[in-house]
Amino acid sequence: MEIGNQSPLEQIFHPKSIAVFGANENLTTMGTYQLMNIKGIGYPGRIYPIHPKLETVQGLKAYRSVSDLPEVVDLALITINAESAVKVIEDLGKAGVKRAIVISGGFKETGEAGLALEQKLVKAAQKYGIRFIGPNCIGIINSWYPINTTMYPYRQKPGAIGLASHSGTYVTQTLVYLEKFGISYAKAVSLGNEASIDIVDTIEYFTDDEKVKVIALYLEGIRRPREFLAAAKRASAAKPVVAIYVGGTVAGARSGGSHTGAMSGADKIYDGMFRQAGIIRAPDIQSLYEWAFTLARQPRLKGNRIAICTNAGGPATSLADACEREGFEVPVFSPELQRKIKELLPETGSAKNPVDVTFSVDLEVPFYKLPKMILESGEVDGLAIHGVGGGSWYAELSEQGKGAFKFPLEEMGKWMDAIFKKLAALPEQLGMPIVTSSFSGREDSAVALVQDLGLPCFLTPERIVPALAKLRQFPK
Amino acid sequence: MEIGNQSPLEQIFHPKSIAVFGANENLTTMGTYQLMNIKGIGYPGRIYPIHPKLETVQGLKAYRSVSDLPEVVDLALITINAESAVKVIEDLGKAGVKRAIVISGGFKETGEAGLALEQKLVKAAQKYGIRFIGPNCIGIINSWYPINTTMYPYRQKPGAIGLASHSGTYVTQTLVYLEKFGISYAKAVSLGNEASIDIVDTIEYFTDDEKVKVIALYLEGIRRPREFLAAAKRASAAKPVVAIYVGGTVAGARSGGSHTGAMSGADKIYDGMFRQAGIIRAPDIQSLYEWAFTLARQPRLKGNRIAICTNAGGPATSLADACEREGFEVPVFSPELQRKIKELLPETGSAKNPVDVTFSVDLEVPFYKLPKMILESGEVDGLAIHGVGGGSWYAELSEQGKGAFKFPLEEMGKWMDAIFKKLAALPEQLGMPIVTSSFSGREDSAVALVQDLGLPCFLTPERIVPALAKLRQFPK
Repeated sequence: MEIGNQSPLEQIFHPKSIAVFGANENLTTMGTYQLMNIKGIGYPGRIYPIHPKLETVQGLKAYRSVSDLPEVVDLALITINAESAVKVIEDLGKAGVKRAIVISGGFKETGEAGLALEQKLVKAAQKYGIRFIGPNCIGIINSWYPINTTMYPYRQKPGAIGLASHSGTYVTQTLVYLEKFGISYAKAVSLGNEASIDIVDTIEYFTDDEKVKVIALYLEGIRRPREFLAAAKRASAAKPVVAIYVGGTVAGARSGGSHTGAMSGADKIYDGMFRQAGIIRAPDIQSLYEWAFTLARQPRLKGNRIAICTNAGGPATSLADACEREGFEVPVFSPELQRKIKELLPETGSAKNPVDVTFSVDLEVPFYKLPKMILESGEVDGLAIHGVGGGSWYAELSEQGKGAFKFPLEEMGKWMDAIFKKLAALPEQLGMPIVTSSFSGREDSAVALVQDLGLPCFLTPERIVPALAKLRQFPK
Repeated sequence: MEIGNQSPLEQIFHPKSIAVFGANENLTTMGTYQLMNIKGIGYPGRIYPIHPKLETVQGLKAYRSVSDLPEVVDLALITINAESAVKVIEDLGKAGVKRAIVISGGFKETGEAGLALEQKLVKAAQKYGIRFIGPNCIGIINSWYPINTTMYPYRQKPGAIGLASHSGTYVTQTLVYLEKFGISYAKAVSLGNEASIDIVDTIEYFTDDEKVKVIALYLEGIRRPREFLAAAKRASAAKPVVAIYVGGTVAGARSGGSHTGAMSGADKIYDGMFRQAGIIRAPDIQSLYEWAFTLARQPRLKGNRIAICTNAGGPATSLADACEREGFEVPVFSPELQRKIKELLPETGSAKNPVDVTFSVDLEVPFYKLPKMILESGEVDGLAIHGVGGGSWYAELSEQGKGAFKFPLEEMGKWMDAIFKKLAALPEQLGMPIVTSSFSGREDSAVALVQDLGLPCFLTPERIVPALAKLRQFPK
C-alpha cells in the first residue's frame, strides 16, 4: 500500500515540471485549453509543450519530443490519439519520466480494439515503472499548489473537498455550478478507465492529506472491491466520506460501461458495502456536493434538536415540516427563551420555534442576535436559517425607485458584511452547526460572504435539512 | 359558486383603479415598497394613495380618506395596523368599494385578541358585501394585466403558472429564485389568513383562467375540505394541479398555526385527498416550481421510453440511472438508429442511449441534429438533454486566454442562438417533451434562451427525471 508521500499521486498533484503533449494554438483541440488552464491557475512549475512542428506554443518554447527536454519532468500530460499515447508512454519510460496523466480516449471504453490498446499502454507503463491517471479522463486540480490540467478554468479559492470521480464532467464542467454555491476543492481527480491509478489509490492518498477534510466520490463501479472496502474504512475513520453510485441499474450500468468501461454491480451490494465502510451514500450530484461542503466546513451535530430562524413564515413552516420528516426534533422553546426572543421581534413575529422575524429592517436581529441567543440557550444542537441576504434586494429597490429615493448602498453593504461575518463565526465559537438558505445566489453580497466563510447557503430551504442530517450521521 | 368573471378575484386581478393605504416615502414602511412596485410593473390603472398628512406620495396626489376620492375604486390595498384596517373596511363599505387586499398582520395568527379583531374585520366586510384577500398576506401579481401589489419587484415575462399560496414568501421572495430558471407566473396570490377569499375560490378562478396553464399550490392547511376536493377535481380535469403541503407533521402544523392560523391535518389524509382530487404532491418548493413550469410548457409524455443525449459521460450515466429508478425505460436504440447517430459522433462518442457526444465543437450535433433524429425515430417518447450552453464557457476561455486568442464571441452567439431556438421548437413540432439541464445558469445565453422559450433547464441532471415523470403522470 502506497500512502501519503509514498503515493504516486503525491508527485502528480505537486509536479515541479510538466511536459504537455497535445497542446497547440488551435481552439478545436482539447489540449490547447488544458495548457491555457495550467497557465491560468498560476502553476508555479516549469511547462514544456511537446509539438512535432511548432517552435512555440502559447508563448512557451516547444520541444519535438521528450528526449529533447532539458530535464526529466515530474509529470507528462498526454492529450493525443490513443495509438500515439502508447508510443509516448514508451518514450517517457526511456527518458526516465515516472508519472503521467493520459487524457486520451479511444481505449477500453470503445470496445475490443480499444481494450487491446489499453493493455499495450499498461504494459509499456509497467515496463518502465510509470504510474498514471486515465486513460479517458480529464486530469487533476490541486487548488492549493496550484495546478489545473483540465479543460475548464478553476477560479475559486482553495477548498476542503477531495473529489475522486469516474466522470471528468463532475470534476470540471461542474465548476461553474460549484461557483454558484462557493463550493471548492482541495484536490480533484478524474480517474477515467483506471488502468494504473484507481479509486482505491486515491482514497488512500486523500485519507492522509490534511488539506482534504471530506472525501467525495462519484462511482460508476469498483474494480477492487476488497481493497476499496479496506481503504474506505480507514478513510471514514479519519474524515467523512460521501459517495454517489450510479451503476446499480441496468441503464446506469450500460451507460457506465460505455463511459469508462466500469464494472458495475447490484445496487444493494453497493449499499451494503457503503454501510460497512462508513460511507454516506448521496442520491444525486446536487446532494453529493452540498453534503460534502457542509461536512467539510461545519462542526458535527451533537444532538437531535434543531432551531429554525427565518424572516419568512412559509420557509419556517417548510423547514419545520422537513426537519420532522428527517427525524429531527424542533422543540418549543422554554418560556424564558421565548420571552427573550420576543423582546427582539416585531408584534407580527413568532418566538416558539420556528422563530419567524417577519418584516425586520434590522438585519442584525435575524442574522446574529437571535442565532447567538438561541444557540447559547442550550435548548438546541444546531440551527437552520433561511433568508440570508439583503444586498441585492436593496440594490434592486434602489433601481426600481427610479431616483425617487437614495439608498446608502455602500454604508449598508459594510453594515451587512459585519453582521454576516459574526454569524459565520458562530459555529466554530459555539461548536454547533448552522446551515442556511437564500432565494438569492452569490449576486447578493451577504450570500457570497457567508459561503466563502464556510456557511453552506442553498437555494431552497428544504435543502438545509438532509445536509444537517449528515452532520448527525457522521459524528467524527 | 362564483367562477370566471363572476369571481371576486376577477376585479382584484384587473382593477381599473386602486386606493393604497399605508404607502408613504419612508423606506422602513412596507406599503412604500408596494406602491413602488405597482408603479414599477407598469400598472395601467389609476392609483390613489391615502395618507392622513402628506400632499403627495411618491409623486402621486394623496387623499385624506376614501370618501375624498374622485371615483369609487375597484380595489383597496391596505397595509396599516390591524385596528386601523378594520376601520378602513368600514369606510370602504360606506364609499361603495367592494374589493380589498388586507396586507396587515396582527389578526388570528397572533392569538385571541387578534382573532377577535379578525372577526370584526369579516363582519364589517360582510355588512357591505366586500370580498377581500388576507389579512396577513402579501397580495397579488398578475403578470399579464399587469399589476403587482407585493413588496418585491416583478421583472419577468408574463408566464403560465397560477400560484395560490398560504405563504407570501413563496409568491414574492422567491421571485429572485424563479428568475434564475426563467420560471414566471400568469397570476399569483398570497392568501394569508383566508378570512374572506380562500384557496377554494382561487382554484375555481384559476380553473377558468385561460392564461393559467398549471395550478400550483402551497398549503399549510385547508379550511373547507369538501369544497376544496370538489374544486380541485374540476381543476385537475382541466389542467395539471401541483401542490406542496407542509402541515402534516407536528412541527409543521405548529409553525403553520402561528404563520397563517391554518388548520392542518394528518399527512396521510391529505395524501388521500390529493390522490382523489388528481393533485400531484410535490415534496419541496424546488420540485413544486420545477414541475409546474415543466407541466405548463412541455407536451405530455405519451409513453415510457426516454432518450438521453449529452456531451458528458457522467451526466449520461446519472440520467440513465435516475430514469430507471423512476420507472422509465432507457431503450437501446435500433442498429439502424445507432448507425445514423454514429455518423454524427466523434470516435470517442457513444450511440446506444444514452448518447454521449463527448467533446464536440459543433453545438448543432448535440443540441439539434441528434435530438431531432432521435425524437423522429419513433423509438422513444421523450428526451432528456444535459449540457445546454456554450456561451459562458467561450466567454470565460476568451478571458482566460489573456489576449493570446481572439474568439468571435458575437458571431458565435448568433450561431448558438439559432441552434437553441430550433431545439426549443422541437417539442411542439413533434408532440414530445424535452427537459434539460446545465451546470450554467442564465449567465449563459443559451440557457436563458431555451428557458424563455419554455424548455425547462435545471442546474443538475437528475432534476430532469422527476419533472419528466410528472408529464407521464398527468397525461391531460
